[in-house]
Amino acid sequence: MNSRVLMAHGSGGLMSQQLVDEVFRSIWSNQYLDAALDGAQMILPPGKVAMSTDSFVITPIFFPGGDIGKLSICGTVNDLVACGAKPMYLSVGLIIEEGFLLSDLKKIADSMAQTAAEVGIQIVTGDTKVVERGSADGIFINTTGIGVISEAIDYTPRQIKVGDYIIATGNIGDHGLAILAQREGLQFSTPVVSDCAPLYKLGESLLGFPGEVRCMRDPTRGGMATVLNELAQQSALGMMVKESSIPVSSVVKGACDMLGMDPMYMANEGKMIVIVGPKRIDEIMEELKKAPYCQNAAVVGRVAAEPAGMVLVETELGAQRIMGMLEGEHLPRIC
Amino acid sequence: MNSRVLMAHGSGGLMSQQLVDEVFRSIWSNQYLDAALDGAQMILPPGKVAMSTDSFVITPIFFPGGDIGKLSICGTVNDLVACGAKPMYLSVGLIIEEGFLLSDLKKIADSMAQTAAEVGIQIVTGDTKVVERGSADGIFINTTGIGVISEAIDYTPRQIKVGDYIIATGNIGDHGLAILAQREGLQFSTPVVSDCAPLYKLGESLLGFPGEVRCMRDPTRGGMATVLNELAQQSALGMMVKESSIPVSSVVKGACDMLGMDPMYMANEGKMIVIVGPKRIDEIMEELKKAPYCQNAAVVGRVAAEPAGMVLVETELGAQRIMGMLEGEHLPRIC
Repeated sequence: MNSRVLMAHGSGGLMSQQLVDEVFRSIWSNQYLDAALDGAQMILPPGKVAMSTDSFVITPIFFPGGDIGKLSICGTVNDLVACGAKPMYLSVGLIIEEGFLLSDLKKIADSMAQTAAEVGIQIVTGDTKVVERGSADGIFINTTGIGVISEAIDYTPRQIKVGDYIIATGNIGDHGLAILAQREGLQFSTPVVSDCAPLYKLGESLLGFPGEVRCMRDPTRGGMATVLNELAQQSALGMMVKESSIPVSSVVKGACDMLGMDPMYMANEGKMIVIVGPKRIDEIMEELKKAPYCQNAAVVGRVAAEPAGMVLVETELGAQRIMGMLEGEHLPRIC
Repeated sequence: MNSRVLMAHGSGGLMSQQLVDEVFRSIWSNQYLDAALDGAQMILPPGKVAMSTDSFVITPIFFPGGDIGKLSICGTVNDLVACGAKPMYLSVGLIIEEGFLLSDLKKIADSMAQTAAEVGIQIVTGDTKVVERGSADGIFINTTGIGVISEAIDYTPRQIKVGDYIIATGNIGDHGLAILAQREGLQFSTPVVSDCAPLYKLGESLLGFPGEVRCMRDPTRGGMATVLNELAQQSALGMMVKESSIPVSSVVKGACDMLGMDPMYMANEGKMIVIVGPKRIDEIMEELKKAPYCQNAAVVGRVAAEPAGMVLVETELGAQRIMGMLEGEHLPRIC
């Protein structure tokens, strides 16, 4: 096989078949994908079905803590988890620039297989397109996932009530800073590694508290600030956050101070913002901290009636300020 | 709103929200999309679930008979139909190049809405990414669809038997030639229009013949020749096609003769190759011809034991030749 992706690999003919067989089907093999039909056919357990889609255009495609392949699985898995679903099946749509290294494509496919195996989901159907040199930047990946939500679960911002707790499931800002550092060649005394991770165990842990877990959302592009604003708007309640409670690693804190950035607007790829009722908060925190990737989980604030639809931050100096959504562009192609 | 897509429209923050609200949510509005959660949540009727994904990178994005938006709905709907599914829900993932005209984006969104409404499917979740000028070519669209397959239906090439009929549901080659003509500025006495169409009614018609309809597949990239080869390989039977029976419009026939191309390798976006048993062939043809976009449906050949895994064409002159899969590249970015 040629060492680079050629236009003919996207023809739909013989070379497309070879590419799919040699790079993808061999690594991702399962009964659904192997059937090689126009679509996968699965039996789902009863319940509501959750469906979520994400395209990944991150640059660079390999970064400390992950790569575009791992990210493309985590991103969609985490969106399904945020719906309260058990992630089950994924589709993968690839757009590849002519000349892309086949060895890199295999690395990405391997990484996707590994992450999917960790979660226990299957890649059941896919599509590969190739565009001419200069018409894309390396590789773009779309994943769309479906999962099943059990009857007792209904996570939506409409469930949020005054007095609820706001939880961040770990240190924020790692992904954003890791990508920025790699792009700009910044060096820190402690290496910065993306938090890119699939949060299916976190999802499972929280299924034990139906009713008490109101909703959750993963603070990717736009960061925690944007997610809190969305939740405030959708619940028509106020999100009161205490800056000193927000888990941030010292290297991210230091780098953000230096660069004039706010960790609250930095992207995360392995964190959730979870809103829970007060009744079982201690149990929930205990369970959460046992889940992988969540040992630094912390309560970062409470929900209040006012200011409705807004996020208010109590700074470390005791002052209060309104924290808006991300305006303009922060860091393009972060996921 | 600015007249072009900006990087900030892909930030995940305020401008992303505005873009989604003003361009997509307003046009595609439905209860699932309007919930604005990380994923859509639907109740599915019982049955197997079909899932199919396709990315669309066609150029030009507006062409006679359609545009990338209409195509992105038809492509995935037709894949679901080929699985024997009733198409129900779609996700949409957009990758947009900075500077893309917002008016074009709206046209595309409108076109998607119109085609989705014709089919009766809903766009329930989506994602929008923006990349810098030069990192993509205008717009790429991924759609992923799910549908439900009733118990009686099991379309797979394994069902194909010796003596089965091979049906093409209409004139082949229209899409490929329409795109080629527009790209190259070719003019024909009769205008060539893409056959881009959603074949959900065709799918419905054939549900009345469970068991007799063995399988179907849409001959997009790689054309009818490639699909027949896939079916021959997957069934380990021979596909015997009679060239004179293949429905081709006179303009496509003439243009292909002139350009030295074979309509059998040209892409189609509104056709199916259907394999059916002999018992109810007349009824099936009668039903098929009543379905929209299928008035030129024709039996084009039969299935034989030999040559196993291959496609044999009887030419108009009575000779026989083996017709292979598409080799190399035919026409890049045709869908």
